[in-house]
Amino acid sequence: MRYKKFLAERASWIKGSALAEVMKKASELQSRGVKLISLAAGDPDPKLIPREVLGGLTGEILRGIPASVMYTPANGLPELREEIAGFLRKYESIDTSPDEIIITIGGTGALDLLGRVLIDPGDVVITENPSYINTLLAFEQLGAKVEGVPVDEDGIKTEILEEKIRKIISRGQKLKFIYTIPTGQNPTGVTMSEERRKALLEIASEHDILIIEDAAYNFMKYEDREIKPLKALDKEGRVVVTGTLSKVLGTGFRVGWVIAEGELRDKVLMEKSPIDFCAPTISQYIALEYLKRGYFEKYHLKVGLPGYREKKDAMISSLKEYLPGAEFTVPIAGMFIMLFLPENADGMAFARELMERKGVVVVPGKPFYTDESGRNAIRLNFSRPSREEIEEGIRKLAELYKERF
Amino acid sequence: MRYKKFLAERASWIKGSALAEVMKKASELQSRGVKLISLAAGDPDPKLIPREVLGGLTGEILRGIPASVMYTPANGLPELREEIAGFLRKYESIDTSPDEIIITIGGTGALDLLGRVLIDPGDVVITENPSYINTLLAFEQLGAKVEGVPVDEDGIKTEILEEKIRKIISRGQKLKFIYTIPTGQNPTGVTMSEERRKALLEIASEHDILIIEDAAYNFMKYEDREIKPLKALDKEGRVVVTGTLSKVLGTGFRVGWVIAEGELRDKVLMEKSPIDFCAPTISQYIALEYLKRGYFEKYHLKVGLPGYREKKDAMISSLKEYLPGAEFTVPIAGMFIMLFLPENADGMAFARELMERKGVVVVPGKPFYTDESGRNAIRLNFSRPSREEIEEGIRKLAELYKERF
Repeated sequence: MRYKKFLAERASWIKGSALAEVMKKASELQSRGVKLISLAAGDPDPKLIPREVLGGLTGEILRGIPASVMYTPANGLPELREEIAGFLRKYESIDTSPDEIIITIGGTGALDLLGRVLIDPGDVVITENPSYINTLLAFEQLGAKVEGVPVDEDGIKTEILEEKIRKIISRGQKLKFIYTIPTGQNPTGVTMSEERRKALLEIASEHDILIIEDAAYNFMKYEDREIKPLKALDKEGRVVVTGTLSKVLGTGFRVGWVIAEGELRDKVLMEKSPIDFCAPTISQYIALEYLKRGYFEKYHLKVGLPGYREKKDAMISSLKEYLPGAEFTVPIAGMFIMLFLPENADGMAFARELMERKGVVVVPGKPFYTDESGRNAIRLNFSRPSREEIEEGIRKLAELYKERF
Repeated sequence: MRYKKFLAERASWIKGSALAEVMKKASELQSRGVKLISLAAGDPDPKLIPREVLGGLTGEILRGIPASVMYTPANGLPELREEIAGFLRKYESIDTSPDEIIITIGGTGALDLLGRVLIDPGDVVITENPSYINTLLAFEQLGAKVEGVPVDEDGIKTEILEEKIRKIISRGQKLKFIYTIPTGQNPTGVTMSEERRKALLEIASEHDILIIEDAAYNFMKYEDREIKPLKALDKEGRVVVTGTLSKVLGTGFRVGWVIAEGELRDKVLMEKSPIDFCAPTISQYIALEYLKRGYFEKYHLKVGLPGYREKKDAMISSLKEYLPGAEFTVPIAGMFIMLFLPENADGMAFARELMERKGVVVVPGKPFYTDESGRNAIRLNFSRPSREEIEEGIRKLAELYKERF
């Protein structure tokens, strides 16, 4: 049967993800028995997650709490929203109330819901350039035109942002929000400076635009100083936060949240109720107990985070050792380093060859860019592979690099 | 801050759910210490779910499988898709392949995805009248105009369906699919006869329309004879199935699926990848082990189902005893009975009074209807309450009934 005629016009806005293609190709190779080293994932390390503890906890929950197998309210377990409000106050300096928190199916679910209530087809959305490919795709699926503003080591370039906003407004286009990942950005690993954060807030205020702050990597910070999220600096309710425990508990649990106020919160909740009911209930109870029992401190801050810091440092050392002089970002948060091949090099071709000839999987940077730049960028993940894999992966990458350039 | 100006036009299509309002009101009363009997839920009974077994299983999974805390592929764990294909072959006579199965976040997630790739604003969608309120809301949120076709004890009235289709086509409107819950329909509890199933397939074929078969209640059948799903009768690939284990494992696990072929499957998967990544991973592993170990037979068919059958029979007995002569549906599947108050009675007012004065929560039928009919309908759930609660709830309902009519 031919299904094409039934598809909605909006289905033509759906694009495949280059990320999904890399992963598919890699799993094809693996299923043929090829051993690969992956520096491609966007995952934390299952070895740094206390699975033993989570296993015990989950057994306890399922046995002890009948409601743990049932729906929760659409905005999430009240006790969990309460706990998260306290957690965000303590670790993020965010002053919010349980009423402004809606528990979502991961941070991804939060972003999709916001897109659904904010984006009309043809609306312009400003993002960092590059930015997280799946969010770009998600917004484009809703009919958004995505315009990127370049990023340097201090985050989004706010001067260019302001120019861009004026241009969009002068063209008569609708611009509702700026989407940003200020801390440990995906894919660059860059963290926005406080000065830029303040400038961004001022610009958004001046032009009356919302900011969606994707805080996915806020619990993967490798320096001791406090990095205040935009929301903690926001006095107007202009910043809408999407957050997640994916990097703490593991990506499979699907517990995230949106922090929104007033009519926006109401609409998100009304949109959500009939389409996803609730985030997975056991995951919500696991999150609740994990936070309540102080496991964030005990397991994530004291065990997980030092492990990720070590792996980040190992990747930087390997890059310096094997690719002296190469350009790459040096993150203070997140899970990624962006490596730049020589100008005009084709990162897509390089990544393909690296996988096929050296058995090392990386993600080309190009698909994360909103324009034709970034052809030579390669996104490297250090959180999931072991230190040995990092060392070997970068060594092999350097071999190919030297053959090609 | 005023958020209204930022909202998308489509946000005006979002309507509140009368169901959500009933539940909210009920939980307000409960939080004030009022003891309520609820015949309102759309849940199975946590006492009939082997939570002890699931608890042990989950502990095993989290401890033993590092991947259980990570993302799965967007279409779900390959082993689970394989297992479900076999399961559907065995219990549903559906001949499908793992490739045509996409694991979704509950059946609700499956319906939303289908709506997203099929519905353009202004498209007409045909549903049963009444039909499941949250699906109606979900389709309306996407801009669909919902048109209902009445249901009797044999399911959707196919003659009226055909008239309705001709009318829609002659008006030049786009009609892409018919949404139906053929077995244990929500809210009526009615199961479509085989004759009507065949007629429905013929009509859809003649007018070249897709059918979305919501199989949410297919594992809650109370008669021994086989009731073949539409998909098992479909020779053209015209039927797209949404299914779920929510009524088997519990609603909180959020594991469902869509069965779709060719380009439709591809588009659903592409739409899904950036917006929900994957159904919760532990839930997918729990579902896998539950099916693989034969627990569906051991716990659901042998323990759960007989328990639900008893409760259904208890509710029917109570209705006959306390409300002799009242009209209600007699289900052979599902979790609901539809009770009809005397003609012209106001079911919304009755439900409100019943909750406030008698402490019994029911869901008014009206919001499930696509037109002004059903004012006098009341949806009763028998799967969640205990037999004692059913008896007491119906007795109290009858008290108010006799006061009012």
